[in-house]
Amino acid sequence: MINVLFAASDADWRTYEAALNAAFAKARLAIDLSRSHAPKEASYIVYAPSGSLQDFSPFTDCKAVLSLWAGVERIVGNQTLTQPLARMVDPSMVQGMMEYVVAQVLRHHLGMDRYLRGQDGVWQQGEMPPVAQDNPITMLGLGELGRAAGLALASLGFPVRGWSRSPRKVAGIDCYHGEAGLGDALKGTGGIVLLLPSTTETENILNARSLALPAKGAFVVNPGRGTLIDDSALLSALKSGQIGGATLDVFRTEPLPEGHPYWSNPKVTVTPHIAAFTRPGSACGVIAENIRRSEAGEPLLYLVDRGRGY
Amino acid sequence: MINVLFAASDADWRTYEAALNAAFAKARLAIDLSRSHAPKEASYIVYAPSGSLQDFSPFTDCKAVLSLWAGVERIVGNQTLTQPLARMVDPSMVQGMMEYVVAQVLRHHLGMDRYLRGQDGVWQQGEMPPVAQDNPITMLGLGELGRAAGLALASLGFPVRGWSRSPRKVAGIDCYHGEAGLGDALKGTGGIVLLLPSTTETENILNARSLALPAKGAFVVNPGRGTLIDDSALLSALKSGQIGGATLDVFRTEPLPEGHPYWSNPKVTVTPHIAAFTRPGSACGVIAENIRRSEAGEPLLYLVDRGRGY
Repeated sequence: MINVLFAASDADWRTYEAALNAAFAKARLAIDLSRSHAPKEASYIVYAPSGSLQDFSPFTDCKAVLSLWAGVERIVGNQTLTQPLARMVDPSMVQGMMEYVVAQVLRHHLGMDRYLRGQDGVWQQGEMPPVAQDNPITMLGLGELGRAAGLALASLGFPVRGWSRSPRKVAGIDCYHGEAGLGDALKGTGGIVLLLPSTTETENILNARSLALPAKGAFVVNPGRGTLIDDSALLSALKSGQIGGATLDVFRTEPLPEGHPYWSNPKVTVTPHIAAFTRPGSACGVIAENIRRSEAGEPLLYLVDRGRGY
Repeated sequence: MINVLFAASDADWRTYEAALNAAFAKARLAIDLSRSHAPKEASYIVYAPSGSLQDFSPFTDCKAVLSLWAGVERIVGNQTLTQPLARMVDPSMVQGMMEYVVAQVLRHHLGMDRYLRGQDGVWQQGEMPPVAQDNPITMLGLGELGRAAGLALASLGFPVRGWSRSPRKVAGIDCYHGEAGLGDALKGTGGIVLLLPSTTETENILNARSLALPAKGAFVVNPGRGTLIDDSALLSALKSGQIGGATLDVFRTEPLPEGHPYWSNPKVTVTPHIAAFTRPGSACGVIAENIRRSEAGEPLLYLVDRGRGY
C-alpha cells in the first residue's frame, strides 16, 4: 500500500478524491489516499497552493510532490521543498488552451468585435481582413501549451513565430530564443500570444519597449500569467493605437478588481481565468502515471527544473 | 487578341479592371478587356449579377461565361444562357471562409459571448465547455468551402460529420448523403454549419423537423445562403432553447431589414455578408486560368452543372 497525502483545499478534495481513486485503480496502483497521513508516512504528496501546506521538511520519505496546477511559481521557491516536483500538464487542458487561443486569435484577426458589438440593425461591413497567410502571430512560450496552440494556428495558415528563453526547434514554427531573439520574434508581428511561465526573467516581458515592435494595431492575447505584462505600458499602447486590442485571461490580482481600467477599456476583453480548465478525470490520470513511473524507477513526467523555475 | 466583355457593375469595374489585366498579363494572354464589345465579338464574358446583362442569346461566339461570384443562383436558371458557365472559387475566399467558420464554431463551442458581453467588472466563470473531441459538428455541404472548413475543424479535434446531396468521400470527415443521411448527420450534433448552394432541394433544409434533431442547445452558423433556413422555425427553436445560438451571415433579403427579429434576438449574431470576401487579385487569377484552359482545349475549372444548379 502506497500512502499518498492530499494537500489542497476542501473544495479540491471534493473535486479530486473520487477521480484520483478511479485513476489509481485504473493504473492498478494500491494506494491509500488521505488528507491525514503523518508526514513521515507519506510516499507522495498531491499538492495545490489552495491548501495550507507550507513546510515540506517533515516529509522525509516523500518521493515526489505532484502539483495539481500547471503553474508552480507559488511553490518552486519554497526552501523546505527538497523533493522532486512535477507540474500538471493535463492533455485536456492543453486542448482547451489551444481552443481558447485559436478562438481569440481568429476573433482579433477577423475584427469580429465590430459585428459582435454592433447588433443594432445597421448593416455595415468592416474592413476586409487579411488572410491568415498575411498575418504573422508570435507565440511567447514554446512549452506544451505554446507548442500546441502555435501548431494549430500554423495549420490554419498563419505564419507562426515562437520565442523561448532557451533554444527550441518546433517544425512548422519559426523559432527564436533569448534576449537577442525577442526583438526579431516581435518585429512587425500581427498578434502576440503569451504562454510563458511566471519567472523573474519573464516578468513584464511585454513592456513599453517590446510593445513598440509589432505592426501597428497588432493584438495581444494573454492566457499565461498576469506578471508577463506591464499593465500601464499595455494601456498606453492601446491608447495610442499601437496595440489594437487585447484579450486577457490572467492578472496580477485575481479576481480582477471591479474598478480596474481593463474592465472599462473598450479595446480590452477580460475573461475570468477560463482559458484552460483542468479536467479532474484527465489530470488524475497524469498523477497516477507519475506514481506508476516513480514506483517503476522511470523518470517523472513534467519534472520541474528548480533552477529555471518551471 | 481575345475579346473579353466585362458585364458587372461600375463599382466592380473599378475593383477588377486593373487586377484582371494584371492576371491576363501574368498568364501571357493577349486580351482586350472592355465593357463595350459587340455581342458577336465577345469570346468570353466576365459576369456578375450586379450588372445589367440579362440576355445572353446575342453572344453567339462566346466560349464561356465566367462568374465573379461563387453563388450562381441568379444566373443558372437564365434560359438565354446556353454557353458554359463557371463559378468563382477564389482560393483566398476558401481560406477566408474557413477562418470565419472556425472562429464562429469556436466562439459558440467555448461559450465566449458570456464573456464578450459581460465586461461589467464582475468576475464570473461560466460553465466548463466540453473539449472539441466531445462536441461533434455537422457541415451541411461538402463543396470546396465545406470541405476546407470541415477539415480545419477536424484538425482542431472536433468530430466532423459532413452531408451532401450526392455521395462524397472526404478523409477525416464522417460523410452522409441524400434525404436518408440527413437525419444521421444532424442527430445529436453540437453545431451545424451551412455551406450548401441555394437550390430548390436545399431551400429550408433547416426547418422545424431538422432543427429538432441536434443536441439541445446546439448552435447554427450560416455563411452559405439565406434560403437554407426556415427563419420562423429557427426563431422558435431559439426560443425553446433547442438551438442555443446562431450566427448568420446571409439572409433572404440583404441588407437584413432594420426591424428584422434577428437583429434584436440576443441569441442571434448577424454579420453583414462578410464571411468570405472575394479578393480581386486572387479571383482574377482564376478567371485568367479558365481562359487559358479554354483556349488550350482543357476543361474549365468550377464548371456549373446546369441540371444540379451549381
